Amino acid sequence: MSDKAVVLLSGGLDSSTLTAYLQSKGMELYAITMQYGQVHKKEVESAIYIAKKYNVKEHKIININMNEISKSALTDSSISIPENREYFQDIPVTYVPARNIIFLSIALSYAESKGIDNIAIGANSIDYSGYPDCRDEFFKSYEKMAKVGTKYGVEGGEFKIIRPLIDMSKKDIVLLGNSLKVPFEHTWSCYKGQDVPCGVCDSCKLRHKGFEEAGVKDPLENH
Amino acid sequence: MSDKAVVLLSGGLDSSTLTAYLQSKGMELYAITMQYGQVHKKEVESAIYIAKKYNVKEHKIININMNEISKSALTDSSISIPENREYFQDIPVTYVPARNIIFLSIALSYAESKGIDNIAIGANSIDYSGYPDCRDEFFKSYEKMAKVGTKYGVEGGEFKIIRPLIDMSKKDIVLLGNSLKVPFEHTWSCYKGQDVPCGVCDSCKLRHKGFEEAGVKDPLENH
Repeated sequence: MSDKAVVLLSGGLDSSTLTAYLQSKGMELYAITMQYGQVHKKEVESAIYIAKKYNVKEHKIININMNEISKSALTDSSISIPENREYFQDIPVTYVPARNIIFLSIALSYAESKGIDNIAIGANSIDYSGYPDCRDEFFKSYEKMAKVGTKYGVEGGEFKIIRPLIDMSKKDIVLLGNSLKVPFEHTWSCYKGQDVPCGVCDSCKLRHKGFEEAGVKDPLENH
Repeated sequence: MSDKAVVLLSGGLDSSTLTAYLQSKGMELYAITMQYGQVHKKEVESAIYIAKKYNVKEHKIININMNEISKSALTDSSISIPENREYFQDIPVTYVPARNIIFLSIALSYAESKGIDNIAIGANSIDYSGYPDCRDEFFKSYEKMAKVGTKYGVEGGEFKIIRPLIDMSKKDIVLLGNSLKVPFEHTWSCYKGQDVPCGVCDSCKLRHKGFEEAGVKDPLENH
């Protein structure tokens, strides 16, 4: 692993723990946060806090209006975010078509421009919502495509999609974050943008499960 | 080939001829034009004209500031666009890292959202500037990645990157466009945004070569 990485930092539990983990390994970090028309903005505020805390060398906040491109409950306030869904049953309406493909591609462009060949993402596919672009098989295929589609790749280089959380459960992620003293109170997972997490969307339920199983108190939960 | 496609329409010679060609085959077209911080805006005006002429059902103009993400002579006015370069010698400074990867990914998101499985691009790799993401090998790899990274793909579908111009020379493209009566005067190829094409950038030189070899007058050339 070379010593620099571009991190996709959303400001949620996973990408914040990822950032803390890579920094603890001594990597020099560059972060990208996508402002893509999420219904909520809290994630972006969290990302700014986490980037500062972990001495990210450059933090890019990139605007792209996903509402213009495709429909999803995450980017269109007229579609309800499901509550208390059985989250393993199928790909939910919160799926944003090709979201990680777009985000990785922007990170790839930034990384190639900076001469950095690691792109880090906090994806995990144990306790997750079933999004196709969070699976290991997808990331392997993306790496192959990046090899033939970039100057660095055709000249012999290889971009790596670093995904250290991919096989971790939410419990494992909470335990890792806890051991690294990640300020969980400054991370945001809820799909909605209220003052406190809703507690019933997929993301809140997965987060709650992780903290509960890890035996760690989530500072964002009052009860 | 199903009867609908999302077309990446820049407003240049290639994508305009592509649009005319697909419309002549009876396809229902949806276009995406990227406003990515090009030094010039003329391409976008051309794209709007061509989309209207060929009855594109929906035309999305998507803003993304590539200047924020990476450096290239096409998006940064402080870098000079090379003149009278030997265009086959290497990948030039006009290369925008991962540009087609980003554009295809946005088109993929739009296509999946619309239930369309064809994405059309005017790339060609005979008379071209040597960009890695214009080659057939890249598009094949992209299709594989899209298969494992989208809901439609994992549920059994296949996205196709339609690229009918891929093995055509600029001469062939001019001849095809001419036979389809493409309004060449409303297409824009020059990398610079002056009132008339500069005549000396890669793109002008390739266009000139195509028209000359085809024995067709380019309405944008005065001499």
